[in-house]
Amino acid sequence: MTAADSYAELVRRSKELGVLNSCAAVLGWDQQTYMPAKGAGLRGEQMAFLAGLAHGKATDPKVGELLAAVEGSDLVRDPESDAAANVRELRRGYDRSTKLPASLVEELARVTTAAQQAWQQARAANDFPAFRPLLEQVVALKRQEAQAVGYTDHPYNALLDEYEPGATVAEVREVFAGLTRSLVPLIKAIGDSGKKPDRSVLERDFPVERQKVFAEAAAAAFGFDFAAGRLDTTAHPFCSGVGPGDCRLTTRYNPRFFSEAFFGVLHETGHGLYEQNLPAEHFGTPVGGACSLGIHESQSRLWENQVGRGRPFWDHFFPRLRQTFPAALAGVEPERFYFAVNEVKPSLIRVEADEATYNLHVALRFELELGLISGDLAVADLPGAWNERFKALLGLDVPDDARGCLQDIHWSFGGIGYFPTYTLGNLYAAQLMAAARRDLAGLDDDFRRGEFSRLKGWLGQHIHRHGGRYRAGELCRRATGEPLSAVPFMSYLNEKFGPLYGVC
Amino acid sequence: MTAADSYAELVRRSKELGVLNSCAAVLGWDQQTYMPAKGAGLRGEQMAFLAGLAHGKATDPKVGELLAAVEGSDLVRDPESDAAANVRELRRGYDRSTKLPASLVEELARVTTAAQQAWQQARAANDFPAFRPLLEQVVALKRQEAQAVGYTDHPYNALLDEYEPGATVAEVREVFAGLTRSLVPLIKAIGDSGKKPDRSVLERDFPVERQKVFAEAAAAAFGFDFAAGRLDTTAHPFCSGVGPGDCRLTTRYNPRFFSEAFFGVLHETGHGLYEQNLPAEHFGTPVGGACSLGIHESQSRLWENQVGRGRPFWDHFFPRLRQTFPAALAGVEPERFYFAVNEVKPSLIRVEADEATYNLHVALRFELELGLISGDLAVADLPGAWNERFKALLGLDVPDDARGCLQDIHWSFGGIGYFPTYTLGNLYAAQLMAAARRDLAGLDDDFRRGEFSRLKGWLGQHIHRHGGRYRAGELCRRATGEPLSAVPFMSYLNEKFGPLYGVC
Repeated sequence: MTAADSYAELVRRSKELGVLNSCAAVLGWDQQTYMPAKGAGLRGEQMAFLAGLAHGKATDPKVGELLAAVEGSDLVRDPESDAAANVRELRRGYDRSTKLPASLVEELARVTTAAQQAWQQARAANDFPAFRPLLEQVVALKRQEAQAVGYTDHPYNALLDEYEPGATVAEVREVFAGLTRSLVPLIKAIGDSGKKPDRSVLERDFPVERQKVFAEAAAAAFGFDFAAGRLDTTAHPFCSGVGPGDCRLTTRYNPRFFSEAFFGVLHETGHGLYEQNLPAEHFGTPVGGACSLGIHESQSRLWENQVGRGRPFWDHFFPRLRQTFPAALAGVEPERFYFAVNEVKPSLIRVEADEATYNLHVALRFELELGLISGDLAVADLPGAWNERFKALLGLDVPDDARGCLQDIHWSFGGIGYFPTYTLGNLYAAQLMAAARRDLAGLDDDFRRGEFSRLKGWLGQHIHRHGGRYRAGELCRRATGEPLSAVPFMSYLNEKFGPLYGVC
Repeated sequence: MTAADSYAELVRRSKELGVLNSCAAVLGWDQQTYMPAKGAGLRGEQMAFLAGLAHGKATDPKVGELLAAVEGSDLVRDPESDAAANVRELRRGYDRSTKLPASLVEELARVTTAAQQAWQQARAANDFPAFRPLLEQVVALKRQEAQAVGYTDHPYNALLDEYEPGATVAEVREVFAGLTRSLVPLIKAIGDSGKKPDRSVLERDFPVERQKVFAEAAAAAFGFDFAAGRLDTTAHPFCSGVGPGDCRLTTRYNPRFFSEAFFGVLHETGHGLYEQNLPAEHFGTPVGGACSLGIHESQSRLWENQVGRGRPFWDHFFPRLRQTFPAALAGVEPERFYFAVNEVKPSLIRVEADEATYNLHVALRFELELGLISGDLAVADLPGAWNERFKALLGLDVPDDARGCLQDIHWSFGGIGYFPTYTLGNLYAAQLMAAARRDLAGLDDDFRRGEFSRLKGWLGQHIHRHGGRYRAGELCRRATGEPLSAVPFMSYLNEKFGPLYGVC
């Protein structure tokens, strides 16, 4: 077998695995949308069957042989070639899955299943001690995972790498430190300004059917292709990129609060545009997939916040919104509405936080995760550490663990290393948007006309079409000319909230 | 390995294949309901991947070894045991799939894909000659299939056996001959009676949303469990029993014709009740699956026609129907409505036929299929033979092939041997209903109160819980005390249509 034959076989296997995983994606979507309640048991068996099949294919020793046969060959000499990128990422995935002993994988599956159930009950009962033993087990297993996978500098690097390939604790820590230093005083100044939007304009009767029509119109205006995708309703909103021609968004409607579904749809649409514009011919291989969670989140945040909470966007959409909800918005001036959707206010719950304070929630979790994984922070001390750092960062007293360290599901499923990608996404979004504005003069005029195709085209050119060809840091440098930094994000916040709150 | 070990491994493999096939069932349902149009290409790859996997598992030589190790052992001595029934049906399936050479399977897949496309165009263009060469190939391949599978008496037996295990041409021919002899004069007498219902009461404005609510209420009254199932909308209605706790019905609403969706839902509900009440602990093995297509169809026809077109049913539901559609049904008397949903009238299209004439459409196809498979009828002579027999059986001139021998999709996908199961279903339904009436006094009084649980319980006891334990003929004898016969069906028709049309 020549290197070319080996590479062709690797690609065939990778694409087959892609098709297999896309079957699981449809079943996962169905589970959240239309599956009858009593179908849950069978669905569990179906998902376990497909996952077992996928695991077997991903860890097949033959993959290791094929990788070894291609690595070092001429095929992968050009690091920007399809082959080089695919082999790089297939190697990363293969090593990661084969380094984990089967006993550890099984133990993690067992413990996280129990931990998710315990977490759900503990949060409802505000009972951290009930969750503590399970979280201790999860942390211990994740530390074992880091040892098994291997790392340099910090065991957390092994975990972070799963979600943000190539990112390191040192880099993230530095970027987050700079961000926090600038964010804390800005948020304090906003709090001290005495200015407050009239949030009540968002908390009126917004009939669900009309919310749906309006949100779909905005998603279509952004360029989401509804012939290759859908929007449905679920308890927890998500975007599932099943594969070429099939991308499914979901949202949750609150008939008495406009922002929940609408900005949720813009967010998922950002994810969806990325999925819909990945290079379909590479589907199933790393080059055909998303680059990282941070880059994925940058796409959702860019459309949700950078575009969807901007004045030019609402210059176009507010008159249409008032036509759609004449009763709720009679007599509401555009400026009042714009301020309402841009309120900055420290709050207890991450998923309800505004675009400025949100990142302090993430910085807190990142710090605590580092401590848990290094061993400097015991699980028993988590609530105290959480509450203390929360007060320092956001200035609020945490009234109970349910609204404190028990609020997120992530730790219960073993997702340690996941949180930083949310803020990385915000930072990438701001940096990409600044670069797009430099490249494309008059972008705000486009938005004021409800026209978003130049921006979508720019993202397609600089982000989407590259799929997983480059690591996130490299992709950012190529698209913006600079390594990732918190500066564009802080400039964006200052330019936006400075005038709104009369600060800076 | 003991026989018990071999049997346990057979069951494990069969159940795994059941889970695998249930994944394909969800994807198939999604394809007809919610999949975005541009997802069709990927869906094709997903279905082919799962089908390939299933075929590999079904024809794995290990299955043959395991079967041989169990057959003849004490485990299968009691023919009514789980093991005996499972081994009997697994053997049948294994032999059938392994006797077909891979080349024939591939050729059939290739030709039927092309034939379905050609059929669609030929029907639209009323162009039988365009379809003829493909149908000739299909027939030739199905004759090869019969040779490869093996048969006694008539090659058609090998094809019939795929859909109705154990049924034979000789039996079906005899039953159908008796049926036709009685049906033709009944239908003629009805035509000559000069009586005609006022069909217009069904062709008014029936708002789709209210049709849906009303149909779901009827399905729920029959006992369909909506926590373990759903009802959605598709171009072609079907029931997909995904597996335990998950059964999905679909229908198609016509806002100007009440019967299409409503009786369609009752029909699919009958299928659904069977699926929902199969023995879940045996899911994936033959004992946990349906007995045959004929028995499946008996369940749909029983609820649709025997119950749903009966006077006691409408005694309960008509007042509710009039409340649901006050505008359409103002001033319509129950009797007028009842006659309208029970019109008997020869017509050209099988799927639109009433419950009496329907079976002549099937008898015609059965005759012609026998000729095609024996070689007595050339494909070129099919339109002429169709039209001549149609005139003899139903008294109508067929104006064109689109409304003649091109109307059904079945032959294009190679489904020769399938049609008889529709009429077997009607006959089983009547025979089962007659037996249930003997066992359960006052069943019509139940129906008049909107109460169907005793009937559902009887079917559960005599049909559903047995799954595939017995062949259809044996199941019928056990449930009704008699072998299958057309007599109960003809009695039912005579008792119903005699008074309605003043005949007999």
